Amino acid sequence: MPADRGRPPAPPTISEVAAEAGVGRATAARTLGGYGYVSPELKERVLAAAEKLGYRANALARSMSTGVSHTLGVVVADIGNPFFAGMVRGICDASRARGFDTIVLSTYEDLDEEIAATGVLIDKRVDGVIIASAAVGRDEVTHIRTALKQGVPVVLVDRAVGSLDLDTVVIDNRDVAREAVETLIAAGHRRIGFVWGPPVAQAPATRRALLAAAARNVWTDGERLRGYLDALDDAGVPFDPELVMVGPKTEEHATEEVGRMLALPHRATALFCTETDAMTGALRAMRARKLSYPGDLSLIGFDDSAWAAVMDPPLTMIEQPVRRLGAKAAEVLLDSLEGAEPRRETHTLQARLVVRSSVAPPPAR
Amino acid sequence: MPADRGRPPAPPTISEVAAEAGVGRATAARTLGGYGYVSPELKERVLAAAEKLGYRANALARSMSTGVSHTLGVVVADIGNPFFAGMVRGICDASRARGFDTIVLSTYEDLDEEIAATGVLIDKRVDGVIIASAAVGRDEVTHIRTALKQGVPVVLVDRAVGSLDLDTVVIDNRDVAREAVETLIAAGHRRIGFVWGPPVAQAPATRRALLAAAARNVWTDGERLRGYLDALDDAGVPFDPELVMVGPKTEEHATEEVGRMLALPHRATALFCTETDAMTGALRAMRARKLSYPGDLSLIGFDDSAWAAVMDPPLTMIEQPVRRLGAKAAEVLLDSLEGAEPRRETHTLQARLVVRSSVAPPPAR
Repeated sequence: MPADRGRPPAPPTISEVAAEAGVGRATAARTLGGYGYVSPELKERVLAAAEKLGYRANALARSMSTGVSHTLGVVVADIGNPFFAGMVRGICDASRARGFDTIVLSTYEDLDEEIAATGVLIDKRVDGVIIASAAVGRDEVTHIRTALKQGVPVVLVDRAVGSLDLDTVVIDNRDVAREAVETLIAAGHRRIGFVWGPPVAQAPATRRALLAAAARNVWTDGERLRGYLDALDDAGVPFDPELVMVGPKTEEHATEEVGRMLALPHRATALFCTETDAMTGALRAMRARKLSYPGDLSLIGFDDSAWAAVMDPPLTMIEQPVRRLGAKAAEVLLDSLEGAEPRRETHTLQARLVVRSSVAPPPAR
Repeated sequence: MPADRGRPPAPPTISEVAAEAGVGRATAARTLGGYGYVSPELKERVLAAAEKLGYRANALARSMSTGVSHTLGVVVADIGNPFFAGMVRGICDASRARGFDTIVLSTYEDLDEEIAATGVLIDKRVDGVIIASAAVGRDEVTHIRTALKQGVPVVLVDRAVGSLDLDTVVIDNRDVAREAVETLIAAGHRRIGFVWGPPVAQAPATRRALLAAAARNVWTDGERLRGYLDALDDAGVPFDPELVMVGPKTEEHATEEVGRMLALPHRATALFCTETDAMTGALRAMRARKLSYPGDLSLIGFDDSAWAAVMDPPLTMIEQPVRRLGAKAAEVLLDSLEGAEPRRETHTLQARLVVRSSVAPPPAR
């Protein structure tokens, strides 16, 4: 490279030191940053590699090794949900690669627990917080504003919160839901059940009331409902509130509600299921009536899994980029910890419809 | 109740105050203990209820509200595994009921990460730690001994560690594995594949070498292998190393290895799958060969899930009491924090074989 002649070689990075030492980047970062545990053998290898390559901690790394706890805090709605478990994995991997540990609290969708969890993370002096929040209204975000006031940066993940102007990393729930319902419409369906809708006691009679109910609940659920309505509108398929499940978000209730939709005079011929338990509930209702898919009923679900792929026939499912979602949230937060200007923007990742064999034309009437 | 006449009434408990105030026990405990966040409205209701019932904090509650952070730390091998996610849910619920928050770190089966995670929890001054440890040997438990030396009690969960004399809460993996394999033998099977065994490169030729390899890996895996061998021995079925999968614990590798077992001259007619991905890998291998269950191949798997129940036919699976496992670990730890003498015993919970429709006699040869 003649153009580079005479320039000093670029200084080695932590990654290069890690590769030379044959250790992970997190181990190299811990050793060179002088924090956290590293076994004596690995520490020696890292220091030998750093000396060989002429590594010198840069100013940023030095500033990061003082006054920073190298810990990120994560508050998720339900760590028992494989979606959030995968997201947390993405956060852990991305933060480890930059030398940070991650501690997680799960709130099980209870806003009071979310407020307490955020307080615990501030008490434990984490450097920043990632929250998948159950908050909806302006009066429900005081705990997040408190964290910000105390100088703890916050990134929202999976769920946008309208009243907060923060960096937010989400998946395009509305677009991919529309694509799924369009796929059902293209196969000839016009009676498409939506499982599940907002957890209200009574089915709202109008789409306006339904959207208002959704707006008072989790952001992702509302977006999926909007995508369903978009697809119906685009195709001129009339909206029928009898085809929307409301009430408790449980497998048992999904089984009942799908049973009801299958018993309507003009029954559902396809279902769009927005959660794993909505799909397994739908499958139970179908089996109880000796119906099979896709001949009697077409099915598309959220979220893809190893099980969905080995069902017979395999299910057409929406695959969310769960690990990338977590990794992106961690990167946005770490960039701001390292001095990047917060851009307070919404980063939207694309989900993907994985087409398998659970969609067919509706049965002849 | 004449016998009680003249005795002063028993003092009200935190639970009774919570019920009177119409709030959760954790909220009442936070208010009365003077720690953590409680919304002003709820705090007022709790204090009014406490006054009405004549609640007085007892000495224990007072000692607990000073010098204690009311936080438990949990270190799990993989929060992305639904087993651990369910266990963490059990820990959170049980500790919340006694006024403690829970913070979780996931190590993804990396011992260096487990050591770092334990260090983070000590730094963050948690009151006690629950660990599902990847440690096996005596030289791998220094981090746990360090925590104990610093006065942080540790309870082991899911995985016993031979060299540590600590309270340990586990599931009877060996007994339930034996029961599963006995069920297959009772149906007439003698060629029963074990998916998966220890992650060694070469299949050990003898059962002794196989058990030695298992002893160097995760405790639960070794116990399940012992249960498999117990059942073969009891029935006089010869052990065949060709029917044991070794190598990487992935769905892809399970698919390959089950394919190999199905291509043997004297092929496997039944499989005992010790993890979800082992089962989905087995199903893929079977489908690729146009075999169906239970006619061509009988199947029993670990761990039960909503998907396993809606498979067609539904799968016979082992259901582990994952939430109770976590709750019991939390209770043992909280009892020791509240002054109970550590009993350093192993608490064993029973798993359950959920019989459905994936076991039948072997096909005629």
